[in-house]
Amino acid sequence: MCRRRCIGAITVFLAIPAVASAQARTVAERMGYPADAKLLIVHADDLAVAHSVDAASFDALDKGGVTSASIMVPCPWLSEVAAYAKSHLNADLGLHLTLTSEWKTYRWGPVESKDKVASLLDPSGYLWPETGPAVQNLKANEAEREIRAQVELAIAAGIHPTHLDSHMGVLFARPDLFAAYVKVAHDYHLPFLAARVADERAKLLSLLSEKDPVVDSIVMANPTINAGQWRASYGSAVKNLKPGLSEMIVHLGHDDPELQAVTVDHPDFGSAWRQRDYDFVTSADFKQMLEENHIVLVKWKDLKKLLE
Amino acid sequence: MCRRRCIGAITVFLAIPAVASAQARTVAERMGYPADAKLLIVHADDLAVAHSVDAASFDALDKGGVTSASIMVPCPWLSEVAAYAKSHLNADLGLHLTLTSEWKTYRWGPVESKDKVASLLDPSGYLWPETGPAVQNLKANEAEREIRAQVELAIAAGIHPTHLDSHMGVLFARPDLFAAYVKVAHDYHLPFLAARVADERAKLLSLLSEKDPVVDSIVMANPTINAGQWRASYGSAVKNLKPGLSEMIVHLGHDDPELQAVTVDHPDFGSAWRQRDYDFVTSADFKQMLEENHIVLVKWKDLKKLLE
Repeated sequence: MCRRRCIGAITVFLAIPAVASAQARTVAERMGYPADAKLLIVHADDLAVAHSVDAASFDALDKGGVTSASIMVPCPWLSEVAAYAKSHLNADLGLHLTLTSEWKTYRWGPVESKDKVASLLDPSGYLWPETGPAVQNLKANEAEREIRAQVELAIAAGIHPTHLDSHMGVLFARPDLFAAYVKVAHDYHLPFLAARVADERAKLLSLLSEKDPVVDSIVMANPTINAGQWRASYGSAVKNLKPGLSEMIVHLGHDDPELQAVTVDHPDFGSAWRQRDYDFVTSADFKQMLEENHIVLVKWKDLKKLLE
Repeated sequence: MCRRRCIGAITVFLAIPAVASAQARTVAERMGYPADAKLLIVHADDLAVAHSVDAASFDALDKGGVTSASIMVPCPWLSEVAAYAKSHLNADLGLHLTLTSEWKTYRWGPVESKDKVASLLDPSGYLWPETGPAVQNLKANEAEREIRAQVELAIAAGIHPTHLDSHMGVLFARPDLFAAYVKVAHDYHLPFLAARVADERAKLLSLLSEKDPVVDSIVMANPTINAGQWRASYGSAVKNLKPGLSEMIVHLGHDDPELQAVTVDHPDFGSAWRQRDYDFVTSADFKQMLEENHIVLVKWKDLKKLLE
């Protein structure tokens, strides 16, 4: 759903002008804020993938370092996250719909019975390791079947999802997959991550109902940033936020033996990267940046109310 | 396959006299040792369950603290163990056939397509958490289908299994499950853990061929042992080993955040327990005990040769 450019080495997804929206009022106005308010969801991805990720994310949620997070339902630590969700009923937890299993040492399969979703499996029987082969091989009806199974398993585990998004962007990468994603979100009355884009994919937004909130810009660290530039890059991105609804996507974890082993040979989104993101979102610096730039923190739960 | 009694607070499985065996010569004699030799396999269970378990077990295998280990194929760290197996071709690695998923925060399902093995799943869609409900619910043909899928997946991942055994003893707990286990082991020409017992289950040994090696006694720590008695208890068990083939089953891991989270609320076989087992098998004390008691360390690979 997005074409990227870099501001201060932080990826920001291009926004098309709000006039291109079918919505008469902006999301900010619908939520009761002035039209020029800068609304921000600070969102931790990948819960349930590893204990290290869960521990860091729960801590950041508890401290208010992030407002929201989303869960990888096929991953083995789902029960840990479900226990957290049941003891933190106000936590803003969505589902990070997962159609890939990207790490070298540590893999998972689908929630649905494998023979029902054969196109989702790589030759070893796990989900495809990369977005590319996933997008080449997935049958849209099987992808839809699997993401429905993920929503159902999360609900059965006691989670009340506040929103949907897509791990590694697989569901944003093909029109029929995006259509399945929107259909499932509508069926469960959930808001979902969809960003305004200025390329040919903008026409996909016609699948959305008038009520569906659309994110105006997305901020996410990318591999061009050196470790030493981490805070300055986020600082620059926060300073440059435009009025409208933005989402800052972070990947939290601790740089510990478990996560070092999960992310072995893959520094991008690796354990040190996730430790840096955790250190940043839980820092006093970040809190001060948000205050100085008059950023209003919001949650997916707030957007969900717009659908009611 | 075993009734337990305690020697020095270490569980030892009761052996029936060797005369009850159909085999004319003892395993020791068939392996070229004197009939009264004390042969011991030191065996680490549960590889692939967690990185912490893998790291401790690989280290103990590399140091000769254990002679053998077995792998839980449905668990997410299988690829980490397969990489170790491919770079350590002499490592004695069998398959710890797994029909349960016993931890609270961290779960896994079957290798086989779920709708083909419905009796193996608990209401949440994972494998049953305990041996009891597993044994009550499993259909033997579905259990056989799943353990064959586990063997096939391990082989496809590049592992050359040296033996089979059964996680949490599920395959020892019902005659038809034991028969499936023996059948699969025979089909793949693999030795498998079967222990002499003095109770009604002894008749199951009639399923074995004359070539199948049978373990005379099993030594394993149990929850009655205090942490401070760990070494003394193992020491007493080693001292009391009888002539014949014994297996000491250990559970290795590090007492770190990952394994503390996996084994939360379950000190038995928990992270501190596994750290104690790791510390013991890699200690100079253990090496000295084995030497002083004239224990001959053997591997499942040596037993596999008896089937050729």
